Amino acid sequence: MGRRAFTRRFVAGGAVVATGLTSMSAAAPASSAADGPRQAEAAGEVKRITLYAEKLADGQMGYGLEKGKASIPGPLLQMVEGDTLHIEVVNTMDVAVSLHPHGVDYEISSDGTRHNNSHIEPGGSRTYTWRTHAPGRRADGTWRAGSAGYWHYHDHVVGTDHGTGGLRKGLYGPLIVRRAGDVLPDKTYTIVFNDMTINNLPKGPDLKATVGDRVEIVMITHGEYYHTFHMHGHRWADNRTGILSGPDDPTPVIDNKITGPADSFGFQIIAGEGVGAGAWMYHCHVQSHSDMGMAGMFLVAKPDGTIPGHDGHAAHKAGGGAGETGRHAH
Amino acid sequence: MGRRAFTRRFVAGGAVVATGLTSMSAAAPASSAADGPRQAEAAGEVKRITLYAEKLADGQMGYGLEKGKASIPGPLLQMVEGDTLHIEVVNTMDVAVSLHPHGVDYEISSDGTRHNNSHIEPGGSRTYTWRTHAPGRRADGTWRAGSAGYWHYHDHVVGTDHGTGGLRKGLYGPLIVRRAGDVLPDKTYTIVFNDMTINNLPKGPDLKATVGDRVEIVMITHGEYYHTFHMHGHRWADNRTGILSGPDDPTPVIDNKITGPADSFGFQIIAGEGVGAGAWMYHCHVQSHSDMGMAGMFLVAKPDGTIPGHDGHAAHKAGGGAGETGRHAH
Amino acid sequence: MGRRAFTRRFVAGGAVVATGLTSMSAAAPASSAADGPRQAEAAGEVKRITLYAEKLADGQMGYGLEKGKASIPGPLLQMVEGDTLHIEVVNTMDVAVSLHPHGVDYEISSDGTRHNNSHIEPGGSRTYTWRTHAPGRRADGTWRAGSAGYWHYHDHVVGTDHGTGGLRKGLYGPLIVRRAGDVLPDKTYTIVFNDMTINNLPKGPDLKATVGDRVEIVMITHGEYYHTFHMHGHRWADNRTGILSGPDDPTPVIDNKITGPADSFGFQIIAGEGVGAGAWMYHCHVQSHSDMGMAGMFLVAKPDGTIPGHDGHAAHKAGGGAGETGRHAH
Repeated sequence: MGRRAFTRRFVAGGAVVATGLTSMSAAAPASSAADGPRQAEAAGEVKRITLYAEKLADGQMGYGLEKGKASIPGPLLQMVEGDTLHIEVVNTMDVAVSLHPHGVDYEISSDGTRHNNSHIEPGGSRTYTWRTHAPGRRADGTWRAGSAGYWHYHDHVVGTDHGTGGLRKGLYGPLIVRRAGDVLPDKTYTIVFNDMTINNLPKGPDLKATVGDRVEIVMITHGEYYHTFHMHGHRWADNRTGILSGPDDPTPVIDNKITGPADSFGFQIIAGEGVGAGAWMYHCHVQSHSDMGMAGMFLVAKPDGTIPGHDGHAAHKAGGGAGETGRHAH
Repeated sequence: MGRRAFTRRFVAGGAVVATGLTSMSAAAPASSAADGPRQAEAAGEVKRITLYAEKLADGQMGYGLEKGKASIPGPLLQMVEGDTLHIEVVNTMDVAVSLHPHGVDYEISSDGTRHNNSHIEPGGSRTYTWRTHAPGRRADGTWRAGSAGYWHYHDHVVGTDHGTGGLRKGLYGPLIVRRAGDVLPDKTYTIVFNDMTINNLPKGPDLKATVGDRVEIVMITHGEYYHTFHMHGHRWADNRTGILSGPDDPTPVIDNKITGPADSFGFQIIAGEGVGAGAWMYHCHVQSHSDMGMAGMFLVAKPDGTIPGHDGHAAHKAGGGAGETGRHAH
Repeated sequence: MGRRAFTRRFVAGGAVVATGLTSMSAAAPASSAADGPRQAEAAGEVKRITLYAEKLADGQMGYGLEKGKASIPGPLLQMVEGDTLHIEVVNTMDVAVSLHPHGVDYEISSDGTRHNNSHIEPGGSRTYTWRTHAPGRRADGTWRAGSAGYWHYHDHVVGTDHGTGGLRKGLYGPLIVRRAGDVLPDKTYTIVFNDMTINNLPKGPDLKATVGDRVEIVMITHGEYYHTFHMHGHRWADNRTGILSGPDDPTPVIDNKITGPADSFGFQIIAGEGVGAGAWMYHCHVQSHSDMGMAGMFLVAKPDGTIPGHDGHAAHKAGGGAGETGRHAH
């Protein structure tokens, strides 16, 4: 098994998805050509997972794929257009909770809202079904957009009927829907600007990579404030994939983007491309927000594991880093 | 006369435009094919309308197409690229008022600003002229963009030289400029996030549709705050029309968008497409804003008029719903 | 020397770049055809400039290309994809300062951050190197975006490790990277919404043009607040260049855009196109912001220098106007 096949299991959001269950359909390389990127492949899979909504020791809350393993953000869920995902959510807490997704197709019974009676009482469970579809032409000739996108899921009932308490405490996570043919990354990190925190942490986690890694960032905002997400030394296209579709794509290329609650976007960058290894900051560019801690490091190491100018830090270990982004249940 | 031709008269923004005067040029179907969508048709029309700026009983203010019929938002005005609209604004109030548009071509005498002397004293009237144009090539070979877009109009002088008082009280409305060939909707709703209200109402109006309706949303923001507009279960493309131009269009598909004062965008969705009937929330996703009432329902009924899980509400009546979105003068 | 070649020297941001050094590569017309626009031309130039970080008399700070000539915003720096720029920054102040760019390629030693030891102590100097590249295909077949964009540079260490003090006092400026073939403007103005000011001025500067001028606006936001940038009577495409790439480009055309700190965009408009001469406002559309002074005039004169309806103002002088946008050292 090559390195790529290995590292791709480390889907981000804080959790190492050992089973690969939630991202299996994206795992199969569409091409075995050594020089082409791995691509998503449509398989129309129907998958079933269980998600546990749990209280963490410090009063926060999280979703997890295994009992006692909840994290903030919750696990990265991945689908390819055409997939269906049945998610049994088990509420281990003493307050009602729910699961509300952005981007995917779901019937009103999977809305995750109190007014639709699609929430879960304490100790209960409920299965939510998400479907996805590829783009296509409608009978009237207009184009129907596909489901692909950098989406997310969150609670909609804890604290208020809009889940304000659940979001504040950490009940949110990333959801990627890929299109067949989309380029797959070597690793994915999730960054959530939630109120004045990053991933409910007092400061932003380190994101680790080696020069040349294809790193995917899923950027989600929640809570009360607007923010601007900035990365030093790396840029992306402000379109669906963050990758230009070709030389004539007029999409702006940016390294800073304003976002508000429930906005989400994502992109892939080649770590250190054209700029080399280093400790590259990423941060909210609202000045008081970065000054108060909304900043972290994108640590891009040389192949030998060293990071120029980054003193007093432990050596970089390739392939890992997922643990830094989350806060786990215990 | 078929259903489509009928329902399209119910242009939104709170007002039923019985005369069709302001949207006539968009009325003619470009094709009689039963399975193609209705499309806008260029006619280069020159139209004249009268708009009354009025005080409402509760101290608010609105624009209306007939005396005593002002609404918040003001009436939906529609043009097709190439049209000219002469608007006589009659100021029935005891303070100066104006009409300032976004997006269209107008000479400085139609700017609607005090520093250009293009406002209207109490009891007076003034004719503003808006022109539109199709895209085309300039003499130097560069492309000139057309006027098509989801735009809006508002007062620019009540309270302050930027119309802060007029906007707060309700002097704003939607303006759609279509391109020949643009798909026409079955119905249009206007949602204005104005300070902490939706359409100056304490909570968001219900938007009614039947599964399969092509529903157009015009989303405008005014006032002081930033917001994020979110719809449950429905998505749109973040481009000019909200509709992908084809399978290779790299535009992001979204269901949540950050907006600030005077931003506007629009899109068309097929009610319940892929998700079915239901009471689908739309709301500002800034948590304190939705908790304080910036939320409403997109009520998508089955053909028999029922909405699954939507108890305690009156039966849905197809084709109507416009009345809920406004506040009328009397 | 024709008028175009003359006016293009008046690159904006407050400074008249007499030497043309920082924008030389963009100067050469790609075509001598009388009716085509001037276009950027790739030359792969390596340029060296010196930038002085200085205190201004009123306690503010600025960057300047000559000693004692610092301005707010700092000088417009221009590159064409493929160019390299070596910038020796001389710190004439009694506090440490730095230079941090957005958009371009630079090694970590040119990051301009304290944690990378790439700042400049009082009285010292340091050379920062920025590189740019054209778009191209990677070995794996994916597209790598080019460097072209409306970018900016700023201090990252004065006051806080995020340069909050330096930004507040004026240590910021515009950076344009053009692609070979990009249309060149007749003149460029830089507008920076910095906290509640425009270019650190109590009210927005006048931007002067004659009907038909191809005017470029670089719009940058800094500080603490979100804003919406609005121009009266003129629109742009919300893409990389602000110019539609062709008739099928689905990019929204807008005249109002939400922005947050470190966001930047730019566009070109033909002054008065379709609307004529006049005193056209540009302003932040957040109501309290415009009411408190975040507004200025885009003064578009007729060829005879008059501006209809613009009384009590000095006659417009073509080709100038740069002085109004800045605050100079003395």
